[in-house]
Amino acid sequence: MLKNDRFLRALLRQEVDRTPVWIMRQAGRYLPEYLAVRKEAGNFMTLCQTPELACEVTLQPLRRFPLDAAILFSDILTIPDAMGLGLYFETGEGPKFERPLRTRRDIEQMPTLDPMNELRYVTDAVSLIRRELDGAVPLIGFSGSPWTLATYMVEGGGTKDFAKVKGLAYSDPSAMHMLLDRTATAVIDYLNAQVAAGAQALMVFDTWGGVLSSRDYAEFSLAYLQKIVDGLQRVSPDGDTVPVILFTKNGGQWLDKMAATGCDALGVDWTTELSEARARTGDRVALQGNLDPSVLYAEPERIRAEVHRVLESFGGGPGHVFNLGHGIHQYVNPDHVSVMIDAVHNWRPGQ
Amino acid sequence: MLKNDRFLRALLRQEVDRTPVWIMRQAGRYLPEYLAVRKEAGNFMTLCQTPELACEVTLQPLRRFPLDAAILFSDILTIPDAMGLGLYFETGEGPKFERPLRTRRDIEQMPTLDPMNELRYVTDAVSLIRRELDGAVPLIGFSGSPWTLATYMVEGGGTKDFAKVKGLAYSDPSAMHMLLDRTATAVIDYLNAQVAAGAQALMVFDTWGGVLSSRDYAEFSLAYLQKIVDGLQRVSPDGDTVPVILFTKNGGQWLDKMAATGCDALGVDWTTELSEARARTGDRVALQGNLDPSVLYAEPERIRAEVHRVLESFGGGPGHVFNLGHGIHQYVNPDHVSVMIDAVHNWRPGQ
Repeated sequence: MLKNDRFLRALLRQEVDRTPVWIMRQAGRYLPEYLAVRKEAGNFMTLCQTPELACEVTLQPLRRFPLDAAILFSDILTIPDAMGLGLYFETGEGPKFERPLRTRRDIEQMPTLDPMNELRYVTDAVSLIRRELDGAVPLIGFSGSPWTLATYMVEGGGTKDFAKVKGLAYSDPSAMHMLLDRTATAVIDYLNAQVAAGAQALMVFDTWGGVLSSRDYAEFSLAYLQKIVDGLQRVSPDGDTVPVILFTKNGGQWLDKMAATGCDALGVDWTTELSEARARTGDRVALQGNLDPSVLYAEPERIRAEVHRVLESFGGGPGHVFNLGHGIHQYVNPDHVSVMIDAVHNWRPGQ
Repeated sequence: MLKNDRFLRALLRQEVDRTPVWIMRQAGRYLPEYLAVRKEAGNFMTLCQTPELACEVTLQPLRRFPLDAAILFSDILTIPDAMGLGLYFETGEGPKFERPLRTRRDIEQMPTLDPMNELRYVTDAVSLIRRELDGAVPLIGFSGSPWTLATYMVEGGGTKDFAKVKGLAYSDPSAMHMLLDRTATAVIDYLNAQVAAGAQALMVFDTWGGVLSSRDYAEFSLAYLQKIVDGLQRVSPDGDTVPVILFTKNGGQWLDKMAATGCDALGVDWTTELSEARARTGDRVALQGNLDPSVLYAEPERIRAEVHRVLESFGGGPGHVFNLGHGIHQYVNPDHVSVMIDAVHNWRPGQ
């Protein structure tokens, strides 16, 4: 029994009493209560791998703010870590892998993933969060996209120029497709396991699709987003529809192609106006976004004005989930998040 | 007497015998002869500030490859450095400033720039390169855009989230506009000084305009690109037209607005198809680009295929300058650059 189904209804472009709102990375470092739990856990992966802790930090932002959805606290790199690449974090630096995939041989030797086994800590967290939420709001499950995961798997960490992963894609495209295809299968199994455990909506984060040309995006990223959309279990064990959201950062030019995959909704970053995104997708999908996270550094008056601009750009009617256009920044004042959410709640079309 | 004016003719959308080609960052670390001069100079800024060395590295790629243009060897951060912000480089890290601009007071106290004085080393290099080129190909002068320069000036170096500069833009927009306006004036004076010294075409690099929303791009970047286009001396001391190229990385969605500034040409990165760029700009401007620099990691056969795709996407007719969609990477094999240039030369429409 879901007490607040605004988020799910908006994703399915059904009427809602007001625009639902959640925040990418809403459980994160801008919250002092998150930092306290993380400090206690010792490190980030312990937080992800301990269902009680993942549940606790998932629920923290919901205690503070009247959000319309919860999102599983986890990391997109759980999949390659479970495949044995050896994820680790160095202080002050991004994620790294001890054993990156550099050659066709590395890729051929990738183990297949049984998420119910290697990623049991994630599905356990999903079940626990669902129990603790007790129907207050729906729970979102998520994964990285195959292309985005592949960038980390091949580069061995973050990158500015994507030289190694693009080098592999151009010099040995069939090896690259083998990697993407196997990763897509793992993503499908992983997301379906999350649905079986209780996830009520799914989001695929294609953080790095936007570094590709249009043709390469279609070949190396979108084709595998399509495979995922086709392979997902989009009905919950209770018989409810599980909406699927795709998000390619810097993918504003390809929204029409993304909508054609048959997903339910698209995430939109702040570089594309929602009015344009809506025109390009012809109301075939719901749209989620798209306030620039940096707006939260502004004073309350400016935050309210920018929130209203986003809502007006969408232009009313069903099919909008308010969110930032990317994850919330670490140094944002949580009080400014309240201002943002209030501004969403207080908006009426045509103000 | 220019022996090869293909580049200038293409920028003005006049007929040419074949598509001209040059490479962003063509004088750079992928060339062993560049690394040798840089090692001798001791550091990067000495290279920029010594006209004989800047001239030498500007000419190096022209000795190796049949390029249709030379570009002044310099750095976009010469302007803030000349304004007293104290540019320095730490090994393995990007550029930094000792005295970033963080407050309205910092911005009010910015000195005005007299490029003929503080940046004399640049105009001296331009004059020397022109003499040494002896009319072989035209010389391109350049600057960073006001918004892009402001990101470094406010952040104090490179940034991933642009939190400080966007924070200033949202919390004190009038201070931000003061900074952008003064920087635009400095850019105009700097580029006009380059034209007076012999630059035959001008390019403005807006590397970070693409991190803004559409509205903020119009307000904080495009408005100052417009000011620059309006303020430039677009005729050389010899009476020749000096074409102006604007390039906003990740600005594919705004090409129509950029074309409306009255510039002659637009740089296009590889995330936008040239066919789409051409449709959006309605043949009002020439287009420059747009091979993904990572393609140069591929084998020759693939490089040729990708070059031909770019040329076919533009679709023939006047108004195309072939280039990468961003600067060439450090670890590219120079032989692959030859393959790329040959592929441009050997292409015939409808192959």
